[in-house]
Amino acid sequence: MSFDIIRSGRAVLHVTNLEESRKFYDALGFIETESTDTELYLRGLEEHNHHSLLLKKKDTPSVEVISYKVRSDEDLEFLASKLEQEGNRIRWMDKGEQKAVGKAFRYQDVSGLPVEFYAKMDSVERKLQQYHLYKGAKVQRIDHFNCMVSDVEQAHDYYIGKLGYACSEYTASEEENIWATWLHRKPSVHDVAFMNGPGPRLHHIGFWLNDPMSLIHGCDVLASLGYGPNIERGPGRHGLSNAFFLYVRDPDGHRIELYNGDYFTGDPDFKPVRWDLNDPMRQTFWGHEAPDSWFDEAMEVLDVHTAEKVEMKKAKLKKRKPTFVI
Amino acid sequence: MSFDIIRSGRAVLHVTNLEESRKFYDALGFIETESTDTELYLRGLEEHNHHSLLLKKKDTPSVEVISYKVRSDEDLEFLASKLEQEGNRIRWMDKGEQKAVGKAFRYQDVSGLPVEFYAKMDSVERKLQQYHLYKGAKVQRIDHFNCMVSDVEQAHDYYIGKLGYACSEYTASEEENIWATWLHRKPSVHDVAFMNGPGPRLHHIGFWLNDPMSLIHGCDVLASLGYGPNIERGPGRHGLSNAFFLYVRDPDGHRIELYNGDYFTGDPDFKPVRWDLNDPMRQTFWGHEAPDSWFDEAMEVLDVHTAEKVEMKKAKLKKRKPTFVI
Amino acid sequence: MSFDIIRSGRAVLHVTNLEESRKFYDALGFIETESTDTELYLRGLEEHNHHSLLLKKKDTPSVEVISYKVRSDEDLEFLASKLEQEGNRIRWMDKGEQKAVGKAFRYQDVSGLPVEFYAKMDSVERKLQQYHLYKGAKVQRIDHFNCMVSDVEQAHDYYIGKLGYACSEYTASEEENIWATWLHRKPSVHDVAFMNGPGPRLHHIGFWLNDPMSLIHGCDVLASLGYGPNIERGPGRHGLSNAFFLYVRDPDGHRIELYNGDYFTGDPDFKPVRWDLNDPMRQTFWGHEAPDSWFDEAMEVLDVHTAEKVEMKKAKLKKRKPTFVI
Amino acid sequence: MSFDIIRSGRAVLHVTNLEESRKFYDALGFIETESTDTELYLRGLEEHNHHSLLLKKKDTPSVEVISYKVRSDEDLEFLASKLEQEGNRIRWMDKGEQKAVGKAFRYQDVSGLPVEFYAKMDSVERKLQQYHLYKGAKVQRIDHFNCMVSDVEQAHDYYIGKLGYACSEYTASEEENIWATWLHRKPSVHDVAFMNGPGPRLHHIGFWLNDPMSLIHGCDVLASLGYGPNIERGPGRHGLSNAFFLYVRDPDGHRIELYNGDYFTGDPDFKPVRWDLNDPMRQTFWGHEAPDSWFDEAMEVLDVHTAEKVEMKKAKLKKRKPTFVI
Repeated sequence: MSFDIIRSGRAVLHVTNLEESRKFYDALGFIETESTDTELYLRGLEEHNHHSLLLKKKDTPSVEVISYKVRSDEDLEFLASKLEQEGNRIRWMDKGEQKAVGKAFRYQDVSGLPVEFYAKMDSVERKLQQYHLYKGAKVQRIDHFNCMVSDVEQAHDYYIGKLGYACSEYTASEEENIWATWLHRKPSVHDVAFMNGPGPRLHHIGFWLNDPMSLIHGCDVLASLGYGPNIERGPGRHGLSNAFFLYVRDPDGHRIELYNGDYFTGDPDFKPVRWDLNDPMRQTFWGHEAPDSWFDEAMEVLDVHTAEKVEMKKAKLKKRKPTFVI
Repeated sequence: MSFDIIRSGRAVLHVTNLEESRKFYDALGFIETESTDTELYLRGLEEHNHHSLLLKKKDTPSVEVISYKVRSDEDLEFLASKLEQEGNRIRWMDKGEQKAVGKAFRYQDVSGLPVEFYAKMDSVERKLQQYHLYKGAKVQRIDHFNCMVSDVEQAHDYYIGKLGYACSEYTASEEENIWATWLHRKPSVHDVAFMNGPGPRLHHIGFWLNDPMSLIHGCDVLASLGYGPNIERGPGRHGLSNAFFLYVRDPDGHRIELYNGDYFTGDPDFKPVRWDLNDPMRQTFWGHEAPDSWFDEAMEVLDVHTAEKVEMKKAKLKKRKPTFVI
Repeated sequence: MSFDIIRSGRAVLHVTNLEESRKFYDALGFIETESTDTELYLRGLEEHNHHSLLLKKKDTPSVEVISYKVRSDEDLEFLASKLEQEGNRIRWMDKGEQKAVGKAFRYQDVSGLPVEFYAKMDSVERKLQQYHLYKGAKVQRIDHFNCMVSDVEQAHDYYIGKLGYACSEYTASEEENIWATWLHRKPSVHDVAFMNGPGPRLHHIGFWLNDPMSLIHGCDVLASLGYGPNIERGPGRHGLSNAFFLYVRDPDGHRIELYNGDYFTGDPDFKPVRWDLNDPMRQTFWGHEAPDSWFDEAMEVLDVHTAEKVEMKKAKLKKRKPTFVI
Repeated sequence: MSFDIIRSGRAVLHVTNLEESRKFYDALGFIETESTDTELYLRGLEEHNHHSLLLKKKDTPSVEVISYKVRSDEDLEFLASKLEQEGNRIRWMDKGEQKAVGKAFRYQDVSGLPVEFYAKMDSVERKLQQYHLYKGAKVQRIDHFNCMVSDVEQAHDYYIGKLGYACSEYTASEEENIWATWLHRKPSVHDVAFMNGPGPRLHHIGFWLNDPMSLIHGCDVLASLGYGPNIERGPGRHGLSNAFFLYVRDPDGHRIELYNGDYFTGDPDFKPVRWDLNDPMRQTFWGHEAPDSWFDEAMEVLDVHTAEKVEMKKAKLKKRKPTFVI
């Protein structure tokens, strides 16, 4: 018996003003599947699943959970029992408890992140070929989560050793400690990345674009709608992952990455790309130096059992901020 | 005393169903300035003038007039008197007679085409930086008229010798007759082109796009709205003018070119580019062979005095159809 | 015990003039890994494997083999034994027998196509971030094989039932026969497609581009180098697979597709997209009607044991040619 | 009798290492027309003139002259005599004195900038349709000069009143002083801009690109060749001129702008666009805050008679640095 995690599936974020959020994500080019007074279900243009981003109206912005899709309900149960055997406390959510989502369970992962697994989500009509609905940055699909955690090596070892992820790229410090790691289940550069820093926190959610021009047009549309100041970093290219990137902050400060340019990683003999922490092209192949906020700020996460904010731990490795020119 | 023609300014087309036309030009990405039950005023995203395309509801599709903007009302009067002295019959239209257009006059040019000159048109707010309004092929501005006429050399000589146009490129037949000619006032490849064929007819109106990707996205949007069959030719690149082109037919068969890729022609010492009629790269630098309709069909034009269709004359040079591979 | 086919890996084509082929594939933007007097090894910009296209100088153009990469040598042996048990005659090729390729075996698949499996290929330096080497259409990586076979349903059932492929899209005839099918192992639209027609033949090899502009620039470069006539079809968009496509013929007539625009298919609950054979948007979401050559011509394939051309069988389903406008 | 200035034509820069400069401008995508041990003649892909950028090897980097093309030698002589009558000291350079350039004269303009006028330059083969030569940012043609001067209003009034330029856009301070102005002869946003600051200095030379993707690919190529740190600002969009921009510094610190996105300004009734100095979208419609170097550093200019550096004057208006978020 085994289990198969397919990909990063969705995130559930708490926001303080649903209407402000709707306007912002609409500007980015998301499709709204449906909404209530307190919930907004969003997805990308090619997504056949009900949503990849769920926004819930709450008093305080935070990350309720980040979710991965597994192959089947059998995989789900096997994974849950395995995690319980390893001492994790699981919270099951029955089919029907969450709109459009089948049976699911949540737990706090090795870094303290609120993680959910589910196998089934309702299907909806894809908009891939309804090009007249394309707008903003033409967001295509969810791609990855990027998390700031206090112990990257622990997370790296856990996701590879226990959950079957593979590493595509990583950053090594002088002492060959892993400073940051990019891990995938689907054959892209990542479904999840872990970076050294005070955590657990969610640094950003990455959404994939079909081409670089969509990112540039997205900037123009954001600016003409008054969201210019929400652009935090970019456009630029990371050495790591080869991403052509833009980072934007939503009205509650949640960070979204628009992302294009990675590559196929599905070969078993693909060797992880090693980057030296001091290589300036690692963070910024080209582009402006990232602002302090990009290094310092991230989204706080909740406990899946208490719904309280998870307490942060200091980063294990000493803080460093790479700069454009060393 | 002199006169200065600035550029191609607008076209007035007759269409049979204004609502069908509105949907089509909206899909292409035009901005609607205003409309009545019988008139629809359209412009491109960067245009500060009231319209560059006026559609009037009539029983029969046709071209009422193609219009050029001149520097001032003084230029207009000088040009009119000059043309009258040369034997042309002028039809003046006072300010107020045409919505948003100042004083204007019309006449039948040397090829029999209905041509209008005006100096003033009302200004409206440019949409250049309202990127959230960009859609379809993101039409930026009117660029040129392409006309099929029975005697190209006559038109060529007249527009250069009498109206002050310059030639950027031309096609020469074996006997060095001018088969087609590209003439400009503004420093682009053309404000007007004349091609050998039964005429006078308007072959197409060209609108300029800022980049090639807008043309591709325009195709996608047209197709997803059901206008795929309206794409007549392209995308492809002409050798002549270096245009990256798409030709579409509106619901009445009027032909619009979406156009990107030409160059600066304002240098007095720029030498016209000569193309041999038998050079296959002239018409199609790359791309599919043009369909017969592209060679055979064009828009019929009206007499500016009688509003009757102008009778067509046979082409002076023998008909030829260039093909992709000779 | 099981086996895991990772993806389409490489094709081996016979060409008659290696220097002519080199020039052509260089124009397209391929990277040359190495070459001898009789062999040319090519790959895309992101490929870390030695080659994805091997051209061998021979007297007659043909397809020697199309190859799929499997997870490990154990998978390879298990797969071989399984195929042998099913009555297939296997031809083993030891490590060292083929440059850069590990142990491999070949056989004639259910449609008579020459198919190879291998697990290992030498690694070479990726050029993904050496942007100064990007040229032509900036070919990124091999994506798929498209094969014309006499019995599509047989191939469809075999690849799904015996080899573990999944169907992303298919075309159904009036009687719900499968006219064409798109099958994948990696989570893209396809690693291999089968179309109804006289076969077995290889219709084209698809290479993936990062963005649509690379395809347009590729056309310009091909044309300026004199390869305009080698463009057989496109640019256009298929309804099927959502591909923004260009088909080119190499100097021996081998057909290459440049391809961008498909989507993630890795969800187990992704339902195959059904297209009606009579839906005009299936083949051509927009774009010119395909020329007869695109429907009629394909690359002949060799017997892996005799190196003789495999005899063609008539298509099981009646020939039809979809057209742009029904 | 009159004179007609056509457009900004070329710049002559002093550089300290011709080979380093050659590598850099080659990476940007310039075409090298010819070179000697001490001179390098560069042009864009569509340019039919011998060069638009001349680099001369000297001990110290500086700007020898910026040049405008006029209609004819008669225009040139008339303009020279007019300028002499106004008290300017003219330096004539005969045909043959400068490679490829006809008769020319130089003088120090109202701001102290070294300015040259010429009518004729040798023609060379355009590379517009030799797409296989396109590389880097695919530089198409020279577009404008941007100058930092101590008295912008003086320059503004002089170029409009004496030289016949038109204003497309300008920045007004609280007291309605002109802080910066964009002036043109060809119907684009500018041939020359003047910004308030210590001067006279040349801030940058702008080159026009056909599309935004060329700018992004240019960044990638610069970075992969090690020129990432030479990117000083961008990509981003200016509110002013609607430019999609990138600023790079050459090995001697000379600043080049890659530029796309402006619009047609040739209408006599086009009203200059007014920007408030405190409008944050003026400088940066979107994009990172400009670094201090962009505001503080510019290229020093030479005296056309003595070849000594022109002494700088303090800016008349108080220094301000606009920031991304006020």
